[in-house]
Amino acid sequence: MIHAPVIHAIVVTQFAKMLNNLVAILGEAEKFAAEKKFDTSILLQSRLSPDQFSLVQQIRTACDTAKLGAARLAGRDKDVPVHADTEQTMAEIKARIESVIAYLKGFSPDAFAGAAERRITQPRWNGKSLSGQEFLVQHVLPNFYFHVTTAYAILRHNGVGIGKKNYLGDMPYREAVAA
Amino acid sequence: MIHAPVIHAIVVTQFAKMLNNLVAILGEAEKFAAEKKFDTSILLQSRLSPDQFSLVQQIRTACDTAKLGAARLAGRDKDVPVHADTEQTMAEIKARIESVIAYLKGFSPDAFAGAAERRITQPRWNGKSLSGQEFLVQHVLPNFYFHVTTAYAILRHNGVGIGKKNYLGDMPYREAVAA
Repeated sequence: MIHAPVIHAIVVTQFAKMLNNLVAILGEAEKFAAEKKFDTSILLQSRLSPDQFSLVQQIRTACDTAKLGAARLAGRDKDVPVHADTEQTMAEIKARIESVIAYLKGFSPDAFAGAAERRITQPRWNGKSLSGQEFLVQHVLPNFYFHVTTAYAILRHNGVGIGKKNYLGDMPYREAVAA
Repeated sequence: MIHAPVIHAIVVTQFAKMLNNLVAILGEAEKFAAEKKFDTSILLQSRLSPDQFSLVQQIRTACDTAKLGAARLAGRDKDVPVHADTEQTMAEIKARIESVIAYLKGFSPDAFAGAAERRITQPRWNGKSLSGQEFLVQHVLPNFYFHVTTAYAILRHNGVGIGKKNYLGDMPYREAVAA
């Protein structure tokens, strides 16, 4: 079973890192829009298919996946901060991302004690449940990366000058030791 | 530190599940192409941006991320099966995915004993390294889901009738117990 510090390393440390990367990516989108002299709300309303979420909704959903994923794993889903899904501007959506990063950082590793075995459900599941480990590995992780990647893809498709490094962020490399 | 059975649950069981989902998604793409009477190679060569990988290359890279991720975590990267990146048809790329699924299933949970602490490097890193846990959480997971999601996004953008359920696959729900 996955232990509490590893869950923390994934849903707090790594998800906060990815959300920070997303804020920086939106900064690149703002520069691009300024150069080309168009309003960034055009990007926020862009989508890859007419029946797929727009950029702003992809970001909201990435935020909710991280927020609710951490809260449910920690058994704290009764007191999750509510976001009204009304963001329309870059400033508003970046503020939402920052608020979720701050929320995630409120979880200590100990908050996830016993999370792997906890039965976890969601409103749409009609009482069905997954174990915490199943929920993290098969639901939270693929969903979180789905929405972050799709947000990236919408911007990439619209010509914003970003690459994989912007998505992944810095790696904690250890330098090679001289032989 | 992340334990061997959890690493196995992620890089073998879950990645194989996602790759199986991808094969099924390609089946939907084939149906769509047959209905619209165009060759599936048009989809395989599609991309969201002229300087981003095409669908076929996204799939190859998803496969390599899973294959090399598992191999490096297990310390077995000297004997990884080679794929020549020459697939041009749906049959060829599906065969590659299937071969990687079969390769992944060759790893037992014990194969990842000590993987979290193993120093892991890649050819492009010039001798720099990550711990196994850092490599899995910050490199393999975001990269794998990036390429699977981008493959999905290319098909979605081209009108293939797929949704999030095709991407996520089935969940091992436990039914609600009657009160």
